[in-house]
Amino acid sequence: MKFKTSSLFLAGILLSAAIIPVQANNDAMLNLLKVLRDKGTISAADYDSLVAAAQSDKEQAEDVVKKVDEVAASTPSVSVKNGNLKVKSTDGDFSVQVGGRIMADYAIMDEDDLGGTGSASEFRRARLFVKGTLFSDWVYKSQLDFANNKTTIKDMYLQYNGWKPAKFTLGNHKMPFGLDELTSSKYSTFIERSAASNAFAISRQNGLSVGTHGSNWSLTGAAHMTDINGTNSGQDEDFGYGVRVTFAPLAEKTRAIHLGTAFHHQELETAGGGSKQIKLRPEVHTAGKIFKSVIGTFEDYDTYGLEAAAIFGAFSAQAEYVHRSYNAVSGQADQNLNAWYAYASYFLTGESHTYKAASGVFSRVTPKNIVGKGGMGAWEVALRYSDIDLEDSNAGSTGDIFTAGLNWYATPNIRFMANYTSADVDGESDDFDAFHFRGQVDF
Amino acid sequence: MKFKTSSLFLAGILLSAAIIPVQANNDAMLNLLKVLRDKGTISAADYDSLVAAAQSDKEQAEDVVKKVDEVAASTPSVSVKNGNLKVKSTDGDFSVQVGGRIMADYAIMDEDDLGGTGSASEFRRARLFVKGTLFSDWVYKSQLDFANNKTTIKDMYLQYNGWKPAKFTLGNHKMPFGLDELTSSKYSTFIERSAASNAFAISRQNGLSVGTHGSNWSLTGAAHMTDINGTNSGQDEDFGYGVRVTFAPLAEKTRAIHLGTAFHHQELETAGGGSKQIKLRPEVHTAGKIFKSVIGTFEDYDTYGLEAAAIFGAFSAQAEYVHRSYNAVSGQADQNLNAWYAYASYFLTGESHTYKAASGVFSRVTPKNIVGKGGMGAWEVALRYSDIDLEDSNAGSTGDIFTAGLNWYATPNIRFMANYTSADVDGESDDFDAFHFRGQVDF
Amino acid sequence: MKFKTSSLFLAGILLSAAIIPVQANNDAMLNLLKVLRDKGTISAADYDSLVAAAQSDKEQAEDVVKKVDEVAASTPSVSVKNGNLKVKSTDGDFSVQVGGRIMADYAIMDEDDLGGTGSASEFRRARLFVKGTLFSDWVYKSQLDFANNKTTIKDMYLQYNGWKPAKFTLGNHKMPFGLDELTSSKYSTFIERSAASNAFAISRQNGLSVGTHGSNWSLTGAAHMTDINGTNSGQDEDFGYGVRVTFAPLAEKTRAIHLGTAFHHQELETAGGGSKQIKLRPEVHTAGKIFKSVIGTFEDYDTYGLEAAAIFGAFSAQAEYVHRSYNAVSGQADQNLNAWYAYASYFLTGESHTYKAASGVFSRVTPKNIVGKGGMGAWEVALRYSDIDLEDSNAGSTGDIFTAGLNWYATPNIRFMANYTSADVDGESDDFDAFHFRGQVDF
Repeated sequence: MKFKTSSLFLAGILLSAAIIPVQANNDAMLNLLKVLRDKGTISAADYDSLVAAAQSDKEQAEDVVKKVDEVAASTPSVSVKNGNLKVKSTDGDFSVQVGGRIMADYAIMDEDDLGGTGSASEFRRARLFVKGTLFSDWVYKSQLDFANNKTTIKDMYLQYNGWKPAKFTLGNHKMPFGLDELTSSKYSTFIERSAASNAFAISRQNGLSVGTHGSNWSLTGAAHMTDINGTNSGQDEDFGYGVRVTFAPLAEKTRAIHLGTAFHHQELETAGGGSKQIKLRPEVHTAGKIFKSVIGTFEDYDTYGLEAAAIFGAFSAQAEYVHRSYNAVSGQADQNLNAWYAYASYFLTGESHTYKAASGVFSRVTPKNIVGKGGMGAWEVALRYSDIDLEDSNAGSTGDIFTAGLNWYATPNIRFMANYTSADVDGESDDFDAFHFRGQVDF
Repeated sequence: MKFKTSSLFLAGILLSAAIIPVQANNDAMLNLLKVLRDKGTISAADYDSLVAAAQSDKEQAEDVVKKVDEVAASTPSVSVKNGNLKVKSTDGDFSVQVGGRIMADYAIMDEDDLGGTGSASEFRRARLFVKGTLFSDWVYKSQLDFANNKTTIKDMYLQYNGWKPAKFTLGNHKMPFGLDELTSSKYSTFIERSAASNAFAISRQNGLSVGTHGSNWSLTGAAHMTDINGTNSGQDEDFGYGVRVTFAPLAEKTRAIHLGTAFHHQELETAGGGSKQIKLRPEVHTAGKIFKSVIGTFEDYDTYGLEAAAIFGAFSAQAEYVHRSYNAVSGQADQNLNAWYAYASYFLTGESHTYKAASGVFSRVTPKNIVGKGGMGAWEVALRYSDIDLEDSNAGSTGDIFTAGLNWYATPNIRFMANYTSADVDGESDDFDAFHFRGQVDF
Repeated sequence: MKFKTSSLFLAGILLSAAIIPVQANNDAMLNLLKVLRDKGTISAADYDSLVAAAQSDKEQAEDVVKKVDEVAASTPSVSVKNGNLKVKSTDGDFSVQVGGRIMADYAIMDEDDLGGTGSASEFRRARLFVKGTLFSDWVYKSQLDFANNKTTIKDMYLQYNGWKPAKFTLGNHKMPFGLDELTSSKYSTFIERSAASNAFAISRQNGLSVGTHGSNWSLTGAAHMTDINGTNSGQDEDFGYGVRVTFAPLAEKTRAIHLGTAFHHQELETAGGGSKQIKLRPEVHTAGKIFKSVIGTFEDYDTYGLEAAAIFGAFSAQAEYVHRSYNAVSGQADQNLNAWYAYASYFLTGESHTYKAASGVFSRVTPKNIVGKGGMGAWEVALRYSDIDLEDSNAGSTGDIFTAGLNWYATPNIRFMANYTSADVDGESDDFDAFHFRGQVDF
């Protein structure tokens, strides 16, 4: 009778029990049973039976923990840190990231003889990307720009990281030339890159690059084709190759001195030579192209770059000199053109630009106090001077551009920028002046 | 006394245990040990040793639970409710949503003198978007349409919600004008919006809007530029501004009375005036533009709108009147044009259109019984009459359009629509008739 | 004895409890308390109080587990297996998948009279997609190609799977014609599909298909419109319909014999007949279109296809014959054109092509040893011969194309391909030769 109660009671408990977690705590029980047996409080039979029960409890609990661990190990981690959606397998072999950027620009440009008059707006960049890791050693990225209601392939590559000394990248990606160009537009100090970068940009090309680096240097070589639009016209496609080396005597994240140099050769395959002319906006993208070189017909051209930059906490400075030699077809004139810029920036709120020595570029600014978390964000002031010499044999534009900038980083990925730009084309009576503004978010 | 201590001890343990959310079943063990010690069954030394073992067990269990809690707190929630992929950080600061919509349209149009003859198909909308929250106060959205193999920027904005009285939106988004226009195409009762909406649409523009609202009213003001294609042509870009106010005397989700009015001013900046002509399809998108105003050259124009709508459960009705005054350059004629429509809809299966008083628009219909879950979906019938007056000084089209609609909502985000449309252009001998059909999914 | 029964009973309960995955470790405690009470070691009051404590411990633990279970049941599963991002609700009703593919092609083509000279590069495919399940019975897919900086709608459909005998697909998707065409470009053995497929492709069209299948056969019918660009020009849009049936006498995944046949009718609605000419590249996409039929004006045309294929482990072979009859408008000549190809492939590393009998197509190759996991990937060699007859009434090209291929599958979704292609247009003095290469990743 007593026993029956006990049985029913147990059965009831176990039935309703459903489940119980974790719990290693049968050591105390096992110990107690031992003590009680040794003291003779419980019989040896009781002891054996109870120990069996306790062991069984323990094993069950362990099984649960093991199962939970297995599930946890097979469940990818999902992160939306700073708004970046990233899913990663627990073994790190696979990851997928979905993101993009929006840059909404508004400009008021001074009416003048030089083009780019009046007010203007545009989405300077409207990008989406998917990026991922495959079997730990492979990385791909597919990034598209939809600004101006056009589709433009940006990064579109496959990368192999499995051989530690070097990294191989195949597809459309930035060729190794120019600190300003290689630093993401998300992180650039001014709304537009410098005239020196825009005039002689190599930028993204479809090809193969090989990069290696140490803790304070990087070396990247690349060879590429040139036609991303599928308009190959019955002849060899133009191609080029180049190399960039950077060295940082000081290579901390927010205290750095950067030196770099790069060379690029471009071969033009059009029968009879490739027709080229540089037309350059005054560091305002909605403006007209007011700086121009003379049209020439060339066999090939070489571009040389020198880079220097420094970050000391809130202060940073950067300068580049770019020279290009166009080699003309016989009977036409060669051209030697160049441009340079220098700028300095200072964070009123104490933040820093950050340096990535492995690739020799600048990276994201993180405000100390975030708007939306009680802070006022980061505030940066900056000045830039650009000198442009697109003239050879007394033909082609020369001039300079001055830009003053004020940046407000509301969060690490939301930024508002205001630039005042004044450009002067030598020999023209009117100057170009503009206020331009950007609202930017990346995700 | 001894027992009382034990009871109090138990009570205390249980009380504190109840507060600590999780927490392991060693209270019984600790209590038992105390009882056994008090009874002299186990020695004080045994007691101390066993209590230590029990405590250790407990701590192990607590560590596991704590770890699980930490993981849970740092793991974003992932949802695919109704097929909408949404990832949200547990603190709610960050979220990312990926989605889109497909609308596949098929039409059979009556041969006539008025254009838009024969059969036709198109993807009316083929959109993808990424949307997210950053640091809780900021929202971004990047939505693109790829219909007709073209890229079109739709929503592309950054929004600030951190200052409660108002919401600021910068970038491309719908300007505050028109109930029919502001209600998403995903939720519109007919395949195409009314002629009054299409003729005078302000729709999405790149600019800044500020919106505020109460429980039954909304007020939104906006100013915008007009060139999303990056084709600014050496002069000031056109710009505009407007305001919309809505009021709902009855403002429940499925029982609502909506009143609204809006004003918009558009400035045309082309030197010598902007050339404008309204060309309007007969509420069938694959048809030709059979209603036309006369071409004029204008300095600016003003658009006025009046809105009224009501939902009473399965029944809803909606009407709008839109008037536009074009102000001509000197020597040319002003134009005053207008259009209006009224429609009524009824859910045979008892569902409702839903009202969002905070923005003064209609929202998603949720079938009571879902196809795929044993149900037949929601069935809606609707009738619309549109009146068009694009005539001034005896030139320009007038006419009307009649549409009968049958909608089948298979699930909350899958809908099939069938419309019969009959249009009459006054003074033309032939009428336009069409059957058109849509398969729609949003995700 | 009494006790032993009790012990057995306990053991039995616990044994069966062990099958119930999780489950409580207070059995030992409850049992011990009972023993101690029975022995008189603890009083009835102590017993009751301690049992209450044990029960309370147990309930707390159970609540936690219950909560964990609830959370687990409402949390979708997230997977990045093989780099494919897939989120699925636990009830299976909803899923979302985000992915894409990149194919970067590089070619060196022999200079000749036939076009497509020189070196060339292109992104042959640059796609992104979102795909999902809604309420278990509905599937949608939105897939876009951005190659050549253009937007092209690929799969864009809504599918109903809720009625088991057949599957309905509405929107843009591959029409049922051709084994080579229906097998994804991700899995095709050669860089480009055969000339027979390219010349007479039906490919993706906007329409409705209905498909059914058994374990070793499939039957699909479809009807479609033709204008995905929204350029309907005041007349009926062209339309077509077709049917394909496949049968596999042997239908294992890596041992299969496939037979298939398909018919397609295309109606041309242009008043006076539709002007058509086939222009065909020599199975190299960056080459010129060196095979041509004569331009004709037709009322409609019929296309017939025969398919045969076999997989025996590492070896596979495939052949297709396609015939098209153009029915001319009166006064013009009909045309009967055809092409066929045959190829064989062998995996040096022992892998297999895989067969999907339900849709009668080839699917993904999975390397036995993955690069990045210590392996060398899969290596495949293949040869193809294509015969082209675009000639009727002694006008139009005939010729043939020979391709030798070497494929390296580094991982299941990363592949590098090298093809040597030699094409001969009958009656032309020069041949076309090309080496072409592809780097491919899908995610």
